[in-house]
Amino acid sequence: MVITNTRTHRRFNFFGYLALICCIVSSPLMAEDMLVKKQHFKTLNFKTTSGTVLPLVDIGWEAYGTLNSAKDNAILVAHYFTGNSHAAGKYSKDDKNAGYWDSIIGPGKAIDTNKYYVISSDSLVNGNVKDPNVFTTGPSTINPKTQKPYGLDFPVITIRDMVNAQHALITSLDIKKLHAVAGASMGSHQALEWAAAYPEMVPKVLSVIGIGETDSFAQAVLSQATKRIKQDPTWYGGDYYGKSEPTAALAGLLEHMLLHSQHGAVLDQHFKKVLYDDPATRLSIKNELVIVPWLEKAALKRASQLETNHMLYLTRAVQLFRVGHKATLEEGVESITAKVLFLPSKNDMLLPVYNTKKIYNIMKKQGKDVTYEEIDGPWGHLDGIFTIAQKSDTIKKFLAN
Amino acid sequence: MVITNTRTHRRFNFFGYLALICCIVSSPLMAEDMLVKKQHFKTLNFKTTSGTVLPLVDIGWEAYGTLNSAKDNAILVAHYFTGNSHAAGKYSKDDKNAGYWDSIIGPGKAIDTNKYYVISSDSLVNGNVKDPNVFTTGPSTINPKTQKPYGLDFPVITIRDMVNAQHALITSLDIKKLHAVAGASMGSHQALEWAAAYPEMVPKVLSVIGIGETDSFAQAVLSQATKRIKQDPTWYGGDYYGKSEPTAALAGLLEHMLLHSQHGAVLDQHFKKVLYDDPATRLSIKNELVIVPWLEKAALKRASQLETNHMLYLTRAVQLFRVGHKATLEEGVESITAKVLFLPSKNDMLLPVYNTKKIYNIMKKQGKDVTYEEIDGPWGHLDGIFTIAQKSDTIKKFLAN
Repeated sequence: MVITNTRTHRRFNFFGYLALICCIVSSPLMAEDMLVKKQHFKTLNFKTTSGTVLPLVDIGWEAYGTLNSAKDNAILVAHYFTGNSHAAGKYSKDDKNAGYWDSIIGPGKAIDTNKYYVISSDSLVNGNVKDPNVFTTGPSTINPKTQKPYGLDFPVITIRDMVNAQHALITSLDIKKLHAVAGASMGSHQALEWAAAYPEMVPKVLSVIGIGETDSFAQAVLSQATKRIKQDPTWYGGDYYGKSEPTAALAGLLEHMLLHSQHGAVLDQHFKKVLYDDPATRLSIKNELVIVPWLEKAALKRASQLETNHMLYLTRAVQLFRVGHKATLEEGVESITAKVLFLPSKNDMLLPVYNTKKIYNIMKKQGKDVTYEEIDGPWGHLDGIFTIAQKSDTIKKFLAN
Repeated sequence: MVITNTRTHRRFNFFGYLALICCIVSSPLMAEDMLVKKQHFKTLNFKTTSGTVLPLVDIGWEAYGTLNSAKDNAILVAHYFTGNSHAAGKYSKDDKNAGYWDSIIGPGKAIDTNKYYVISSDSLVNGNVKDPNVFTTGPSTINPKTQKPYGLDFPVITIRDMVNAQHALITSLDIKKLHAVAGASMGSHQALEWAAAYPEMVPKVLSVIGIGETDSFAQAVLSQATKRIKQDPTWYGGDYYGKSEPTAALAGLLEHMLLHSQHGAVLDQHFKKVLYDDPATRLSIKNELVIVPWLEKAALKRASQLETNHMLYLTRAVQLFRVGHKATLEEGVESITAKVLFLPSKNDMLLPVYNTKKIYNIMKKQGKDVTYEEIDGPWGHLDGIFTIAQKSDTIKKFLAN
């Protein structure tokens, strides 16, 4: 995959981008490819922040590198909204694709697996339940009491719940203190929440394309993006199990994500000259611009791979996100003792940098050890994945010091 | 109306904002209020850029100040997407509301009506056809050939068509050269298009919250925002005349506009503490965040005042916008000889400043006389209306020099 990490925004591999959006990162088979294995973590009687007790939580996880005997070299990586625990490496040598952060996780890389034991787990209510390498617990899970899927009886989940499930995993490995928690986008939500919830376990947070809280604007935008699902009769009020999934309605959310995860300049390189290349749009308002059918097709494909209710639960978790889950962000970050490296993307259209500046400024004012540095790439939000390697030295130094 | 023009973003009048979104700007009755009168301009056999000839175009216009004998002191003001020609003054002394740019248009103000004759006209396919003070020609107009509304037989309109209708108005007044063309948002689209189409008539352009072209990203976002209309069975494929209007579907577009015309920080001041003030959202994903019903109600109210097909035609005009309507923006601006003052809003979420920087940089590179200065206010896009008076001195000097 050609990823051009320049300020000129001249070149890019559009279909490489599309593949990545679909969670498939192509990279040539290298001799040094890490081979990784998906594992299960199961915990009983998991109490959610809403007060509900889940008899069984089962999430997938994988790891890169080796846990040292002191068990103090572990770095936890949390994944983004549509992502899963496959952050690096390959499942087999024949595997075409590596994990989404393979450019910065591996031997000698920014998050060096020669030094650190990197753990990555699937979130609660992960959307990729149809992926054989993803294990999660959510509304599509069989409720042991009824032997039917939970559906909307599944409790509303917050980012704190995701963190608590990871906390159970980490403590099950007898790890008392992590070296760091890292994540991009919703993964950053979890990383920062870890630092607020378990400050004694988190000395460092790597927040990539992250924010401190979802503001009213973003809450409303997300409700807009999921409205098509909730208004769709084939959603059956959330109880579509045993019927077909409302995939076409879910595609609306994916259209939003596909669009806003990137910058206009990138799309323009692909769809440029639309004005004169597509006279149909000047003949009738019924004819759509060329980007529209492309977007619809890509979103529908991605939607077919995801579980609709899980995506709605993820959306709600993101809507309710505020680090520390206190009445204000100021109160929420107070407990944090970790050093935090914020790496927002300069051109982010999904989580514009004003969000990151807000939490950075609040924490700085409180005397915390925080650093802010923008990723400068052509993609916008996706620069947190695609061109993150440009910050390899910064990340390496941050983790070492 | 209390508009606080500060960098602290501490105070604002939320419902004042809402009123303005609804095209009603409250201001106290002042002795010096300009009284204005709406006039008709009619032109026959108007040829659109698509090649269609409209037997009659009828648009509304109003003016402030006095045309001098040389007829060289006219400034044309074009309006924004949901706006109309009521840019300043009041229709009667009992009128509660003044035009949207009343803070900068009037005697002694930034656009000084003691010096300039300010003309403002309703656009083609204006959405406010139900407003008795708005006159426009569009799909709801009776087609003289069929004696029924044009509906989707009305030709697709571009920003250039809007400019050409204004050009017919201006030449009918025997004005050979304007002093300047000004506008906010879609009004800026028209102002810049004037400079590209009729360079000999436009020595100055005041572009407020303006851009050079609608990029693929924004094109797709607009298609998303109108999708609910086009998929609504009560739209009847555009032929709902004689039936009820698909207002509920049109509200989807207005929800998008209401949200993106402002900044998250402003909404947060109104809807803050949503997380703990509304536990219902943590009980079920079916319960929506408090901002959502507010947004839906406000959008539905505004939608009921607008004409659905007109809004779809306006959307298409905006989607197809590129200054000069050439194959590239670089070619499109080449013909411009006007001095241009760009005043984008620093916190704009609808037309982020990268758009304005793009045309500014292209024109600067071509050696044009361009100035770029950001409006710094709490509202985002709406700062081009609400806090534009902070740039009064800049505008006054620009128009004078």
